[in-house]
Amino acid sequence: MRILVIGGVAAGGSAATKARRTNEDAEIVLFERGSYVSFANCGLPYYIGGVIEDRDELLLVTPELFKSRFNIDVRINTEVTDIDPVGKTITVKNARGESREPYDKLIIATGGRPLELPIKGREKDGVYNVFTVPDADRIVSRLELGMKTAVVVGGGFIGLESAENLRARGLSVTVVEKAPQIMSNMDEEFSHILIRELDGMGISVITGTGVTEITGGDKADGVVLDDGRTLPADLVILAAGVRGSTELAEKAGCRLGETRGVWVDANMCTSVPDIYAAGDIVESVHLVSGKKVRIPLAGSANKQGRVAGANAAGGNLQFKGVLGTAILKVGGLTAARTGLNDREARQLGRDYECLYVPGFSNATYYPDAAPMLLKLTVEKQTGLLLGAQAIGRKGIDKRIDVLATAIYGHMTVFDLENLDLAYAPPYASAKDPVIMGGMIAANSIRGEMDYCLPQQLPEIAKNPNAVILDVRTREEWDAGHVDGAVLLPVDELRDRYTELDAGKDYYVYCGVGYRAYNACLFLKSKGYRVRNVSGGMRAISLNV
Amino acid sequence: MRILVIGGVAAGGSAATKARRTNEDAEIVLFERGSYVSFANCGLPYYIGGVIEDRDELLLVTPELFKSRFNIDVRINTEVTDIDPVGKTITVKNARGESREPYDKLIIATGGRPLELPIKGREKDGVYNVFTVPDADRIVSRLELGMKTAVVVGGGFIGLESAENLRARGLSVTVVEKAPQIMSNMDEEFSHILIRELDGMGISVITGTGVTEITGGDKADGVVLDDGRTLPADLVILAAGVRGSTELAEKAGCRLGETRGVWVDANMCTSVPDIYAAGDIVESVHLVSGKKVRIPLAGSANKQGRVAGANAAGGNLQFKGVLGTAILKVGGLTAARTGLNDREARQLGRDYECLYVPGFSNATYYPDAAPMLLKLTVEKQTGLLLGAQAIGRKGIDKRIDVLATAIYGHMTVFDLENLDLAYAPPYASAKDPVIMGGMIAANSIRGEMDYCLPQQLPEIAKNPNAVILDVRTREEWDAGHVDGAVLLPVDELRDRYTELDAGKDYYVYCGVGYRAYNACLFLKSKGYRVRNVSGGMRAISLNV
Repeated sequence: MRILVIGGVAAGGSAATKARRTNEDAEIVLFERGSYVSFANCGLPYYIGGVIEDRDELLLVTPELFKSRFNIDVRINTEVTDIDPVGKTITVKNARGESREPYDKLIIATGGRPLELPIKGREKDGVYNVFTVPDADRIVSRLELGMKTAVVVGGGFIGLESAENLRARGLSVTVVEKAPQIMSNMDEEFSHILIRELDGMGISVITGTGVTEITGGDKADGVVLDDGRTLPADLVILAAGVRGSTELAEKAGCRLGETRGVWVDANMCTSVPDIYAAGDIVESVHLVSGKKVRIPLAGSANKQGRVAGANAAGGNLQFKGVLGTAILKVGGLTAARTGLNDREARQLGRDYECLYVPGFSNATYYPDAAPMLLKLTVEKQTGLLLGAQAIGRKGIDKRIDVLATAIYGHMTVFDLENLDLAYAPPYASAKDPVIMGGMIAANSIRGEMDYCLPQQLPEIAKNPNAVILDVRTREEWDAGHVDGAVLLPVDELRDRYTELDAGKDYYVYCGVGYRAYNACLFLKSKGYRVRNVSGGMRAISLNV
Repeated sequence: MRILVIGGVAAGGSAATKARRTNEDAEIVLFERGSYVSFANCGLPYYIGGVIEDRDELLLVTPELFKSRFNIDVRINTEVTDIDPVGKTITVKNARGESREPYDKLIIATGGRPLELPIKGREKDGVYNVFTVPDADRIVSRLELGMKTAVVVGGGFIGLESAENLRARGLSVTVVEKAPQIMSNMDEEFSHILIRELDGMGISVITGTGVTEITGGDKADGVVLDDGRTLPADLVILAAGVRGSTELAEKAGCRLGETRGVWVDANMCTSVPDIYAAGDIVESVHLVSGKKVRIPLAGSANKQGRVAGANAAGGNLQFKGVLGTAILKVGGLTAARTGLNDREARQLGRDYECLYVPGFSNATYYPDAAPMLLKLTVEKQTGLLLGAQAIGRKGIDKRIDVLATAIYGHMTVFDLENLDLAYAPPYASAKDPVIMGGMIAANSIRGEMDYCLPQQLPEIAKNPNAVILDVRTREEWDAGHVDGAVLLPVDELRDRYTELDAGKDYYVYCGVGYRAYNACLFLKSKGYRVRNVSGGMRAISLNV
């Protein structure tokens, strides 16, 4: 049996080694267009910033190790230019010329390539992607010449990680993002929080704006924005996203799916016999929506490659699907998401609500407890957890992983409120934010508490019958409150509630929603119409 | 409606406030024997150590706040001495005398009290529990006199947290534990790792030994062990566990369950009409075994109290059960567990296997990646995840919470290997230890790899037909290896395997099990009988 693998980074590398473990007798050859296999592409921004000091750390598995440990023949600097699915051969091209290689099973893991933006001057020196080891090498060499200013085009993972790392090198950095927000896979308010953090790090962010041109002679010296403004830039990073390299799979006749990614079944089989595909080129089932999606991330690529490799070699594994779980470090902040966010749930026409859950990383009486803000997407009626987003300075990765696991397990908010999570003061609160989120959402689904979102307050304030009621203390009020709100501290409410007009609609907030919850229940019992402003001042001010 | 709550710490406090939120019109009275309600008992060791500097931080909710915010009448220093479930009254006693209080609904949350050990001299000055705020006050006052030596009796949560915090105050500390191991809710090897860590902190641990006497005049000056040894001790902490205070519930006629905890249904109703119970006195359903268990922890107490309070006041909530999830900080180490450990699964007669999963907190090429060791308990045939234990210096709380969530959701190891967890280099590896654990266990359940545990190696070594094979490099071998093992590096295996005798049984290990996995599959394909030593050198040496 001869198994050929095209592409040697995450999916391809996993596929080849799993194929070997599944079948010792197969001949396995891996073809990689670039000079490196199995490199840590997620580490590249951190190598540029000097956080990862040793370049060798990026090279996880060398061709020599593929040979000695796995008996896999790796051919780097070798491009596969064509596939003949009938004759079952591929055409390969390298410095020594072109040749044909027969296969019994073929695994296509050609990955992606950076989106090429229509920007004039992008061929100039000083303009780079952050996609391969040579890209990083070029940037590091360039930095050693003493760059002062950088523009990063694109405010996604790679863009923001690159911006942070260039800033760490002392450059003055501006991120320019065409979309109205950065981190477009999260809801808009998280973008605001991240932009504020970036600002505090000395990184400017310009959203809703494209780059039309890179100025300078041979060397870049600035960019022109689509609103005519110019920015100085010794260094320009193009990080506007990744496009799956599906061309080769298409040449082989592999059907593309509705997302224009390569269609595969759960066994990672394409529509063409004996051809498998994995990684950034394929579309996957979204485990919440049931729809096909393309989310090019390393975790899925590794798992898909393993499944493709096993099955190509005679095994029987399945890849079940994705939740779009993702996480980003920006300075001291961590932002993460899983499942469906507000926008996605709305676009899918789900009957859902979103709720904020302010919490702390651990017991507040224990040192270094850090605030966080969760946002849950919950199906009405059933209470099924559809998605979660989180931001804060500590413990975000834990909460998003717990929530991703709960979503994978089709859990409801009634399950969340019953989870038995690990509690000791250094790690959590007795009611962990995840459990608290379950309780808050369950109260809503059970009809015990009605919520509105802080984003609705400006609209609400226009209604003459609406009263925005602050139930915090006078001291908290004095330190800042919602324009047009009225103060009545919760601890005075039982004595003073008759001061309130029962004909009005009350929108009640406090610091994080807990005092407002108690206030709302009291007022409701007295016949008032009330809603709790979800997440309180933490969600209103977006301070975490 | 008049709702009385007996006990005002975790369960009682939650019950009273939830009752209020459920029913604004009820009269709610909370009786607490001590001087404090809703205090942070889990924080007491850290207050003793000065980690929590402000004593007020321990007092989460005061009686005044119960009144102003919740309209709950709190009576501290008031003991409930009897319950008449027919006349529906309780007898209360305080400095002003004895009286009777009628109830419509009664919630018993009397909690626990420290186990009283039969130790002579335990009434002496300098001998303390770490259970209440006054306990902590007494210890802190005592420390200010300049104590030099301490003995902590009991190597569970409170004992070990107290030992660490007394050491932080500069005392010479010895922990004495009657059982053969500390942290008795984890498997024995975790105790070894913790003892090594404690030793590094300058804390001695003596296991399998009881304390028979506390010596000294009015003031303690030492302890006598049951083997006759003596230890100096200016300070003795008794932390041998907690006994549920079920007496009052028993007086009311509440049925005790098979564990001798108060029997309750999912609504936290006892066997006596209109009486609810919650917290350390009740028994709960274990969500894996289905058996009743008593696991007195704050997380469950809070949730149970909330359910009891809601239902007593006319609501309808359920408490679903526990997994025994727990976590402990010892110096820089974190140890945690959930579900069934090896010993529990064996005692329950489950058809299971345990597997080690060495991993890292995050991508190893990113700074500060810390090793960890997971141990999974997995049902054979089905692959159902039954339990997990974990130890390491970073990210342990995350992994145990993810695994606890997976167990709650009845997930199998085939689910674990497919989880979509958040990956970026600062937070995880592309294959998170949890996912890797799923893959390792799934490989075993699918019959692709046979494992043995490192603990079996001494027995295996006695078998003349067994060969323990080290497949690491010569350098790693030279730095330490298993006695009697044979070296054949995995990367030379394909060339040299014929040096091995196909008639022998091979037990193969490497650093963490991955190279051994590859070696085993190769040797198996050549007809050798092989087993992978689960967890490799990390599990053999217990170095994390």
